Amino acid sequence: MKTGPDHTYIHGYSRREADRLLDQARTLAGLLHHDTGYPPGCRVLEAGCGIGAQTVTLAEKSPGAAITSIDLSETSLGEAEARVRAAGCTNVSFRRADIFSLPFPDGSFDHVFLCFVLEHLPDPARALGCLRRVLVPGGTITAIEGDHGSAFFHPDSGPARQAIGCLVALQREKGGNALIGRELYPLLSRAGFREVSVSPRMVYVDASRPELVEGFTKQTFTAMVEGVEEEVLQRGMMSRADWEEGIRDLYRTCEPDGTFCYTFFKGRGQK
Amino acid sequence: MKTGPDHTYIHGYSRREADRLLDQARTLAGLLHHDTGYPPGCRVLEAGCGIGAQTVTLAEKSPGAAITSIDLSETSLGEAEARVRAAGCTNVSFRRADIFSLPFPDGSFDHVFLCFVLEHLPDPARALGCLRRVLVPGGTITAIEGDHGSAFFHPDSGPARQAIGCLVALQREKGGNALIGRELYPLLSRAGFREVSVSPRMVYVDASRPELVEGFTKQTFTAMVEGVEEEVLQRGMMSRADWEEGIRDLYRTCEPDGTFCYTFFKGRGQK
Repeated sequence: MKTGPDHTYIHGYSRREADRLLDQARTLAGLLHHDTGYPPGCRVLEAGCGIGAQTVTLAEKSPGAAITSIDLSETSLGEAEARVRAAGCTNVSFRRADIFSLPFPDGSFDHVFLCFVLEHLPDPARALGCLRRVLVPGGTITAIEGDHGSAFFHPDSGPARQAIGCLVALQREKGGNALIGRELYPLLSRAGFREVSVSPRMVYVDASRPELVEGFTKQTFTAMVEGVEEEVLQRGMMSRADWEEGIRDLYRTCEPDGTFCYTFFKGRGQK
Repeated sequence: MKTGPDHTYIHGYSRREADRLLDQARTLAGLLHHDTGYPPGCRVLEAGCGIGAQTVTLAEKSPGAAITSIDLSETSLGEAEARVRAAGCTNVSFRRADIFSLPFPDGSFDHVFLCFVLEHLPDPARALGCLRRVLVPGGTITAIEGDHGSAFFHPDSGPARQAIGCLVALQREKGGNALIGRELYPLLSRAGFREVSVSPRMVYVDASRPELVEGFTKQTFTAMVEGVEEEVLQRGMMSRADWEEGIRDLYRTCEPDGTFCYTFFKGRGQK
């Protein structure tokens, strides 16, 4: 969780995880952000910026907007700030804040943006309500989320699907929802947003796209699943042999005759 | 199967199935065929035209091309011909033929097109080899396939996933592969085609797209799953109660807070 107390962010705060988040952001920037951009002069709230993996893209694509990026973790905020400064962006200010008790008056922002945040929150519907409050009437919210249940691949593999299922189950136990992408439309609608539109963004990977084989299937997705190995084995959610077979089968999809599919969802609504 | 002996086409040849195929074709024409088109003067083989659900679109989008549409079933060919004539297309000729023993000399066609055919064939790799033979060097093949394992939805439902699994299992028993979409890239590559490129086409359905709720989730996908009910229950693949719950849950995704995702794949290669 980028906006939750440290112990509940399922992927942890390690160096390897930071690298994974940055790899992911680089690989997916075009797919997820080619249509992210805010006009000069407007005030944008980035909720749950984490280590700033998306913040640089956001800032670069909206150079004239005033961006406020918040997160619960001081450590992450420090990293995000360093990253944004290093990229030469001067239009972002950082602040430690909780989505569920935002320190901003009603109507403080023209737009709200959040990416890979709702999936980690115990009550995403309430979070959307809190974010709606700080929007001006007519302001927009943009939420990008993954959906681990959208993953399928060739060759298909039961143990690989089971390993992914473990990640989904662990995230659910921690109060999150790794299948939230498919749910963005009803979540945004129920939170009172109007003209909700959701657009799926599929990452399709085959041998003709080696940068995605490396940057997505291996470094982003499989690395993420591998990240929960210790917890899965400690709790006996899978046997070590099955787990290892599952991970091996995920890497197997990176061979020249393998394919891999995963879908992100980008939802937009208006206050 | 559009090109197999009648008894192996898993969806059958009923009136209801014909209506389903036509609904599907109308609903998906833009998604699947916006980039289907062949220049005037070229010779196109449509392999496995069935009742001509795609043939009219193909003919209308390539008015100057000479299209030869083949199928194993005389009955289907008759229907396809009537449909194409009714649409006023004069650039299609029909012929009864088997993909695995094509009655055409090498290099008879500039392009080959097939849609929802490979999934029903016992040896799709060999079929692609047979089709490659009748292409001129530099000619292209275009294959469109679904992938039932790509379906996911909100609310998620175990019985619904199990019901879809029954369709996949039955199709596999009949020698087909309902998960073939994800496999197009290696299939085309292994058959010797060059510059293979595969593009996924996701149908994403939520309440803001009522024509897809009706035309895709209900009339195309759920109707297709319901089509194997008798066989599933006769063989005890699921209990009647579980089956009915699964079907009910698929319809449940058509409610205002439901969503539905399914991915088709369009592959292209060159001889």
